[in-house]
Amino acid sequence: MDDDVPLILTLDDSGSSTSAPLDDLDREELPNENGGSYDVINDASSPAAGDCSAQQSSARHNWEMNYQEAAIYLQEGENNDKFFTHPKDAKALAAYLFAHNHLFYLMELSTALLLLLLSLCEAPAVPMLRLGIFVHATLELFALIVVVFELSMKMRWLGFQTFIRHKRTMVKTCVLFVQFVEAIVVLVRQTSHVRITRALRCIFLVDCRYCGAVRRNLRQIFQSLPPFIDILLLLLFFMVIFAILGFYLFSPNHSDPYFNTLENSLVNLFVLLTTSNFPDVMMPSYARNPWSCVFFIVYLSIELYFIMNLLLAVVFDTFNDIEKRKFKSLLLHKRTAIQHAYRLLVTKQRPSGISFKHFEGLLRFYKPRMGARERYLTFKALNQSNTPLVSLKDFYNFYEVVGLKWKAKRNREHWFDDLPRTAFLIFKGINILVKSHVFQYTMYTVVAVNGIWILVETFMLQGGNFFSRNVPWSYIVFLTIYGVELLLKTTGLGPVEYLSSGWNLFDFSVTLFAFLGLMALAFNMEPFYFIVVLRPLQLLRLFKLKKRYRNVLDTMFELFPRMASLGLTLLIFYYCFAIVGMEFFAGVVYPNCCNTSTVADAYRWVNHTVGNKTVVEEGYYYLNNFDNILNSFVTLFELTVVNDWYIIMEGVTSQTTHWSRLYFMIFYIVTMVVMTIIVAFILDAFVFRMNYTRKNQDSEEDNGIVLEKEISKEEVVGIIELYKRSSAAAETAQLQKMVLQMDKYGQTSTLFLGRRSRTKSDLSMKMYEEEIQ
Amino acid sequence: MDDDVPLILTLDDSGSSTSAPLDDLDREELPNENGGSYDVINDASSPAAGDCSAQQSSARHNWEMNYQEAAIYLQEGENNDKFFTHPKDAKALAAYLFAHNHLFYLMELSTALLLLLLSLCEAPAVPMLRLGIFVHATLELFALIVVVFELSMKMRWLGFQTFIRHKRTMVKTCVLFVQFVEAIVVLVRQTSHVRITRALRCIFLVDCRYCGAVRRNLRQIFQSLPPFIDILLLLLFFMVIFAILGFYLFSPNHSDPYFNTLENSLVNLFVLLTTSNFPDVMMPSYARNPWSCVFFIVYLSIELYFIMNLLLAVVFDTFNDIEKRKFKSLLLHKRTAIQHAYRLLVTKQRPSGISFKHFEGLLRFYKPRMGARERYLTFKALNQSNTPLVSLKDFYNFYEVVGLKWKAKRNREHWFDDLPRTAFLIFKGINILVKSHVFQYTMYTVVAVNGIWILVETFMLQGGNFFSRNVPWSYIVFLTIYGVELLLKTTGLGPVEYLSSGWNLFDFSVTLFAFLGLMALAFNMEPFYFIVVLRPLQLLRLFKLKKRYRNVLDTMFELFPRMASLGLTLLIFYYCFAIVGMEFFAGVVYPNCCNTSTVADAYRWVNHTVGNKTVVEEGYYYLNNFDNILNSFVTLFELTVVNDWYIIMEGVTSQTTHWSRLYFMIFYIVTMVVMTIIVAFILDAFVFRMNYTRKNQDSEEDNGIVLEKEISKEEVVGIIELYKRSSAAAETAQLQKMVLQMDKYGQTSTLFLGRRSRTKSDLSMKMYEEEIQ
Repeated sequence: MDDDVPLILTLDDSGSSTSAPLDDLDREELPNENGGSYDVINDASSPAAGDCSAQQSSARHNWEMNYQEAAIYLQEGENNDKFFTHPKDAKALAAYLFAHNHLFYLMELSTALLLLLLSLCEAPAVPMLRLGIFVHATLELFALIVVVFELSMKMRWLGFQTFIRHKRTMVKTCVLFVQFVEAIVVLVRQTSHVRITRALRCIFLVDCRYCGAVRRNLRQIFQSLPPFIDILLLLLFFMVIFAILGFYLFSPNHSDPYFNTLENSLVNLFVLLTTSNFPDVMMPSYARNPWSCVFFIVYLSIELYFIMNLLLAVVFDTFNDIEKRKFKSLLLHKRTAIQHAYRLLVTKQRPSGISFKHFEGLLRFYKPRMGARERYLTFKALNQSNTPLVSLKDFYNFYEVVGLKWKAKRNREHWFDDLPRTAFLIFKGINILVKSHVFQYTMYTVVAVNGIWILVETFMLQGGNFFSRNVPWSYIVFLTIYGVELLLKTTGLGPVEYLSSGWNLFDFSVTLFAFLGLMALAFNMEPFYFIVVLRPLQLLRLFKLKKRYRNVLDTMFELFPRMASLGLTLLIFYYCFAIVGMEFFAGVVYPNCCNTSTVADAYRWVNHTVGNKTVVEEGYYYLNNFDNILNSFVTLFELTVVNDWYIIMEGVTSQTTHWSRLYFMIFYIVTMVVMTIIVAFILDAFVFRMNYTRKNQDSEEDNGIVLEKEISKEEVVGIIELYKRSSAAAETAQLQKMVLQMDKYGQTSTLFLGRRSRTKSDLSMKMYEEEIQ
Repeated sequence: MDDDVPLILTLDDSGSSTSAPLDDLDREELPNENGGSYDVINDASSPAAGDCSAQQSSARHNWEMNYQEAAIYLQEGENNDKFFTHPKDAKALAAYLFAHNHLFYLMELSTALLLLLLSLCEAPAVPMLRLGIFVHATLELFALIVVVFELSMKMRWLGFQTFIRHKRTMVKTCVLFVQFVEAIVVLVRQTSHVRITRALRCIFLVDCRYCGAVRRNLRQIFQSLPPFIDILLLLLFFMVIFAILGFYLFSPNHSDPYFNTLENSLVNLFVLLTTSNFPDVMMPSYARNPWSCVFFIVYLSIELYFIMNLLLAVVFDTFNDIEKRKFKSLLLHKRTAIQHAYRLLVTKQRPSGISFKHFEGLLRFYKPRMGARERYLTFKALNQSNTPLVSLKDFYNFYEVVGLKWKAKRNREHWFDDLPRTAFLIFKGINILVKSHVFQYTMYTVVAVNGIWILVETFMLQGGNFFSRNVPWSYIVFLTIYGVELLLKTTGLGPVEYLSSGWNLFDFSVTLFAFLGLMALAFNMEPFYFIVVLRPLQLLRLFKLKKRYRNVLDTMFELFPRMASLGLTLLIFYYCFAIVGMEFFAGVVYPNCCNTSTVADAYRWVNHTVGNKTVVEEGYYYLNNFDNILNSFVTLFELTVVNDWYIIMEGVTSQTTHWSRLYFMIFYIVTMVVMTIIVAFILDAFVFRMNYTRKNQDSEEDNGIVLEKEISKEEVVGIIELYKRSSAAAETAQLQKMVLQMDKYGQTSTLFLGRRSRTKSDLSMKMYEEEIQ
């Protein structure tokens, strides 16, 4: 292969001054308005005089700076950072680098978490975690100072002008200032005042680098708001009309407490929208006149079954549209980033492409952990032409290719191929066995029998002492079978292959848990009994059987990161509401409170004696309070589930003012928004996935993206030369080991497989193919 | 224009034997296997001998038969009737014609309704409608005999072979037989036995010609079932796992009645899926250990928020797919029907197209009510070429064009153009006024002020006597304003144009109602007071303001027929469950029943004296019973809304057996299916519509399909000639009137506008354009 010859030539070139980066003039032609680079580079970009070695070292220095800037551009492209926040000079660059590494990100995250967790210990604290005011206020001040430090680094990097223009940062600064003042006030007064502003603490979390997904979710939620609000108004409008009608129709009935005033009428129709008080709200009027049910049926049909679904339709549609537009703009942003990086990496003489040397330099900054072999493989994977340069068109695939994990393609099929004949045959036999359908279906049968066994066993137990001291024999039998299966599979497939499948991993951990449970039972370790309870989870293995379930579970795993970020977004809303709730409603409900309200029963806690037996009448609802942040979260979850939420609302309202209802209603509407968007997201993701599967029915089940590249020995030797010149010892050593291995097996080339899992972006690319063109 | 010359030529031709329909040989080439026509035609298809006049009359007779068969084909295409039910001979044709007219359809429908309504009067009857056993059994027998007659007509038309092959008809026959036997048994024994089979009566309704949409819905529901059931199994599977876990975790807590047995554990988790018993089900364990809430949060997150939405996604996707495939197959079916009809209408000499004469003959059978002018306009609208024949390609648009309503395009812009100058100016002024934005926005302001007024007024009333004898002056003022608006608009636009807009019609009727309300108030007609209550409906007029609302309301009106048919489908399910419920649970719940159950409070009805006051404690739930079919429907609606449904279930269960729960659970799952499909339908329809609007943003708001065609005087004269020859007096008279009118205004031609509203099919056609090609 001749591929590596020009590579070395380029390397030779690079020493001369002419291969300096594009000069200012060229750089001016960048399509982006913010074409400026660091001053250092601009200063040195006209190498005219000076001795050769200084020139050479300066050129190398220039190149290093270029690599770094290109890497930054690519990072910005990946993270969807706008280019106007691109560091403009060397000082900014230093600050940028300081603020862009995992240590700094972790600091950001932990400060934000510390601030959020403080509410566990502040004023209405969780009993066990209560801290003195002095302690938690000091902790808060400390965390806030760290945030100040972070912000000052950001200011240094962005410059004052950009800092002011960057909205999110400005909001953060304002919140920081307020928090600072309040924390000092608390310290000085030695007492907590009503601090609803604590709800704003979540902005510190949202601004974290690691919470990018949450920010995206929030943006999407806000973008979906306008159509949502339109339909919401329609909903409220009908509610008002029906409230007036209901008031006119039912208030003459004095035994009907739901419609006696216009306010009650409105509130009860709002609750009826959530179906929480149905059919109770209908009963008094229904008892008087059966035809009054028509009012409620019409109301529910219009509001609940029609407009609420319309809401979902509108949000789903907007969501879909935003998702498509977002994908397009992200793609465009990435392309622009790649263009920026590309211009920094081509040489004056060869503006048509990037040589390996420069590409390698870029990767050193972009992915410092990447080995020399991987860098070369990435370069080869990008390079579609026969020339030794990567053209802009090839370079556009950068993000798709750089994520691949490279592995030498094994020429051994099984892990036991090198073993002696007898051992080989035994393992081969096991291998064939565990791969056979008979074995698989036998195991499914065992799992199914086990499932039925557990069910029957549990059914027979009925209130007996089920944590008996004796380990039931059935448990041992099934566990032995699973153990044997595990052993066979591990030996038959090899541990690495066995554990590379998610399903096997699941089997493994379930069996392990079951074994631990057995140990716990056998050795009487009471606190670990709960593991025994996890036995039914084995049954989940049955879902491998059907294709639709596999699809569903695969999609679920694919969606998991997005779902987690949506969950986190919901939690952030919860946090805000929990703080507000605690500030206003902490301690207002307690056993036997709310006697003036219609829901007094739910709060009753009576301990009276009937005959010679003590009967406890528990209403339990006093447990749904805002007494500390954990309780608040549980209460808010109950409000999210919506059933019987009016009991909680009425309880609190009866102890405070009518206006408390606003809190609960607003919470309902906010969770409705977030939940509708979550539903729209799940709908969108699954429908998308199913459409995708339908479109690609011919192609077999995909195992992610796979690429194959071959490297010859000469190529490796060529790269070693290259690295030797730049005296990179580690890289040279790695590559030389590779040459040795190739020599050992007498190969002239090695085949490598690049693999990564398919992301939503890949799918979108394929789905929107024609539209993007 | 020369267009009409060949037309008359064709007419001349038709007398000769050569213009007979395609002979057998040609007919054999039809793509459809069932190419046979009625024997009469086949017999007469070789006109070789006989005198000319007999020949001519026979040819005419043949043509008439051909027209009829073609019309039948087109009807079959429109109704999506399979061609294997096509009448095969003259006897079948007679039966077909007998069974295919609105009188027969109405008989079908009324018999089915009578059978369904009988359950109002049978055994657990609505008190007011109770009938003697002898009466209702006789009525039933009568209705069943009518059904037998209908079926025998169908058998005559289909022939025994096809009759047996037609599944729906066979099922109907079996049900009919069972019903017959049972009705006779009831008559003989003079007492009703447990007749669950009454639930099958709905099949008579479903089979009605007018209930085609319901049949389609049912088919769609059954087609969506397989994926639905898959996900449902997943749901139930997790439920079982959690039930076992819950039993292990919470049954040691003796104050927790929800998990004390595995059965309770399962039932309560099923109810929890509907959120109906949340947070109560959590409270006992939560009171003991706060961390037990994790179990419930995880359960609800997985089951309710994930799998239930997955269910919606899967159904939505399947629905979407079915909708698309259905549209395609319908289109194909229509095309085949058109091909069949086309072959019957072309002549041997001119196989390339249909002449007006034959087209007119077809329309006489296909749309007997259509006037001669409309027939010619339809022909002209179909004819895209300059030849006097409609080719097959043109004929494919038959269904789109035949639905158009034709109207002569007015050359007068306003209705008052012909009035004297002064009057014209006055009306013109009014016209400009009512069309101005100022006028419109003034009216919106008035409506808004009126709305606020009503709200404030209602708020001030608070329990007073609001049906006072005096008419409030505000009412009169606003009504006067609306009256003046109505008057101005009617005079300014002309009554016809005014009432042709749906919104104006709405305004008109609301104002009329308000006026009637005023009358009722003024003349003290108590029973009509409810009209006053409708006043807030005026506010709906405000929704004209925003485009999104207009879109939503338009879509709503477009969807209305489909929604109604879905509602009817739901009602049919309700009917089945109501019958079963009545047979098993009639009379089982009553005040103060269910004292052994956990929900006894809800059924309590105590009338006790505290001090000197009688306090009534009403649980009211005894009203949710199955005592007659109307009560059952209300109860089933409450079960559909799902909130607190377990109270109804537990009440009934405590009075009967555990197995009663199955009824309620199955009902929940069935309504879940239907409701999910309704949601999927609404989602699909709106998303479809919104996508459509987005795709056609350039084109202005559409007023349906509009076509313009011009007819010259010569053409009309030509057609008159044609009709005169076939001595059709009515048609000739209509056309001559048209000629007279043209003469009066001195026109040589008249422009006609064909209009119809856009249907889903038109939209689909545009959306799937590329896929269909």
